[in-house]
Amino acid sequence: VGRTEGIDLAVVAGDGIGTEVVEQGLAVLEAALAPSGTKLSTTEFDLGARRWHATGETLTDEDLEKIKGQDAILLGAIGDPSVPSGVLERGLLLKLRFALDHYVNLRPTKLFQGVSSPLADPGEIDFVVVREGTEGPYVGNGGALRVGTPHEIATEVSVNTAFGVERVVRDAFARAAARPRKHLTLVHKHNVLVHAGHLWRRTVEAVNAEFPDVTTDYAHVDAATIYLTTNPSRFDVIVTDNLFGDILTDQAAAISGGIGLAASANINPDRTSPSMFEPVHGSAPDIAGQGKADPTATILSVALLLEHLGFAAESAKVHDAVAADLATRGDAVRTTDQVGRDIAARVTE
Amino acid sequence: VGRTEGIDLAVVAGDGIGTEVVEQGLAVLEAALAPSGTKLSTTEFDLGARRWHATGETLTDEDLEKIKGQDAILLGAIGDPSVPSGVLERGLLLKLRFALDHYVNLRPTKLFQGVSSPLADPGEIDFVVVREGTEGPYVGNGGALRVGTPHEIATEVSVNTAFGVERVVRDAFARAAARPRKHLTLVHKHNVLVHAGHLWRRTVEAVNAEFPDVTTDYAHVDAATIYLTTNPSRFDVIVTDNLFGDILTDQAAAISGGIGLAASANINPDRTSPSMFEPVHGSAPDIAGQGKADPTATILSVALLLEHLGFAAESAKVHDAVAADLATRGDAVRTTDQVGRDIAARVTE
Ligand SMILES: CC(C)[C@H](C(=O)O)[C@@H](O)C(=O)O
Ligand SMILES: CC(C)[C@H](C(=O)O)[C@@H](O)C(=O)O
Repeated sequence: VGRTEGIDLAVVAGDGIGTEVVEQGLAVLEAALAPSGTKLSTTEFDLGARRWHATGETLTDEDLEKIKGQDAILLGAIGDPSVPSGVLERGLLLKLRFALDHYVNLRPTKLFQGVSSPLADPGEIDFVVVREGTEGPYVGNGGALRVGTPHEIATEVSVNTAFGVERVVRDAFARAAARPRKHLTLVHKHNVLVHAGHLWRRTVEAVNAEFPDVTTDYAHVDAATIYLTTNPSRFDVIVTDNLFGDILTDQAAAISGGIGLAASANINPDRTSPSMFEPVHGSAPDIAGQGKADPTATILSVALLLEHLGFAAESAKVHDAVAADLATRGDAVRTTDQVGRDIAARVTE
Repeated sequence: VGRTEGIDLAVVAGDGIGTEVVEQGLAVLEAALAPSGTKLSTTEFDLGARRWHATGETLTDEDLEKIKGQDAILLGAIGDPSVPSGVLERGLLLKLRFALDHYVNLRPTKLFQGVSSPLADPGEIDFVVVREGTEGPYVGNGGALRVGTPHEIATEVSVNTAFGVERVVRDAFARAAARPRKHLTLVHKHNVLVHAGHLWRRTVEAVNAEFPDVTTDYAHVDAATIYLTTNPSRFDVIVTDNLFGDILTDQAAAISGGIGLAASANINPDRTSPSMFEPVHGSAPDIAGQGKADPTATILSVALLLEHLGFAAESAKVHDAVAADLATRGDAVRTTDQVGRDIAARVTE
């Protein structure tokens, strides 16, 4: 990847509002890359509910091989009520995260100027959650016996390895070390989930030696939801497991302007496969096709994509364009396209 | 139990602020029972950090047998930083909940008049969480291999049975049916934890047939944290698993005046063993012994205790006394004792 070689981008628009927001994300990406003359080649992948209904396929080996040949993935949203719960989540979205070894699920939370928070006194909100992406209760290591009988038993196994925990913890420390406050909070529930929790805790202690100027603390996941309500300013970088990260980042989105603004990156820091950039929100079938979806979360995900691919100045430009748009947004109602166009115009300015 | 036989109460004051808040809880309990002439016999159990340091014991078979002979348990708080994480939680608190089959962990959330919420626009908050108490990721069914090596693997197993899910879901439906709004929300994560999640979902559907006038809906746990921030009024009764219930009830406490007001009941609805009443908060060693702890959560837990033992009028009296105290509380700072005395006085009025 680079200015001369160009970017090969896999585009998975997906379901519902996914197509609408991805269109605007791509427009802003083009606008950001134009000045440098970097060529953007997109390949669309028809994945999601439509494909599953038509063929029964979620993500074939062939799809996966083609995606592996790209530099990055831009994903809109996956899921539709017409598909049984879990089929597309496990068979497509999580399959991508696991197969491409996206072990860092990065979710920045910032209360931008001009955005109102549902908290009466939000203070400054500017933290990033480093959610582990390839282990924990998300491994699909569950099962059920005697289903549908009074003797049914269903299990879900959270799997945590030193290998998997250490690499994400090290990534989180590096991110904390690069931020002004240099503070890392481990969130877990080690007083109940003692085996997994103690592995996480010992790992944070051990890796801290490599980053002596990063301060650390710990919060149980239940307490963390309290802090996110009463004092979110206390957080700088949060590192946590896959499930706790899922829960906390939705709450984090809620306190900082809502899911329409929450960006995420599924990163493979070793760059052995393409990373994936997607808004935290879902496919929102209730508002799909009406131009009502806010593309801002996708556009902020594009900023993360640019940063990951080494286009730091372009990333900052997109981020600043979003910030400027939000600062003047007020109560005006704009369509998905309009928001995308306005932000793209600011990028081009 | 009854007006004539009296109440045999096990008192586990525990650690930190536990002793302080339990003292006030007991004073209010005495005040509430006095008019009826019901005799309250308390037996104190020396359990918690002090006992563990002195003897290495958390909860012996003998302790447990004695506790089983009581009508109910009032618990303050368990835990101290001097005890390794998990020892008292698993060996004492959770052991009580599991051994006494407290399968309904009841946590009402109400924004009382006079209490300010950290939410800018909280609306009406009045819901109850029915948290499963004897299964899920809390079963202690985890383990670790090659601990301390780069090949360490730690697992935590969430165990869910038709038996266990059905009984708590039925209890939640009965509670919903008895409330004006008659609405039940299942919270889970069935798009990822498909085996456990689908068991919960099918169970709610099946038990709904017994309670046809209760309406139901579903929220993923991540989305539930958003609703608790933006629109908590949507909830009436929430039924959920042990871990999700732990997380959501701390957030619920945060939006409704804080952990100093959050009551809970660990109920065995079959009455085969004593139920246990405790504030949601912990032992707060940082403020212990200073008269700073708010005993209100414990006193509201006493109201739940009275209700469970059939003293409905007395329970209502305690609840109303707390409501009246909160309505006039303002910013005045009172000691733990003073708050207890003021509420007891209102009960006696
Ligand atoms: C759709 C679902 C599988 C996904 C997750 O749980 O990770 C979503 O909630 C998210 O946070 O990206
Ligand atoms: C102390 C801990 C084991 C406990 C729990 O997780 O259940 C507490 O957080 C609670 O909510 O009562």
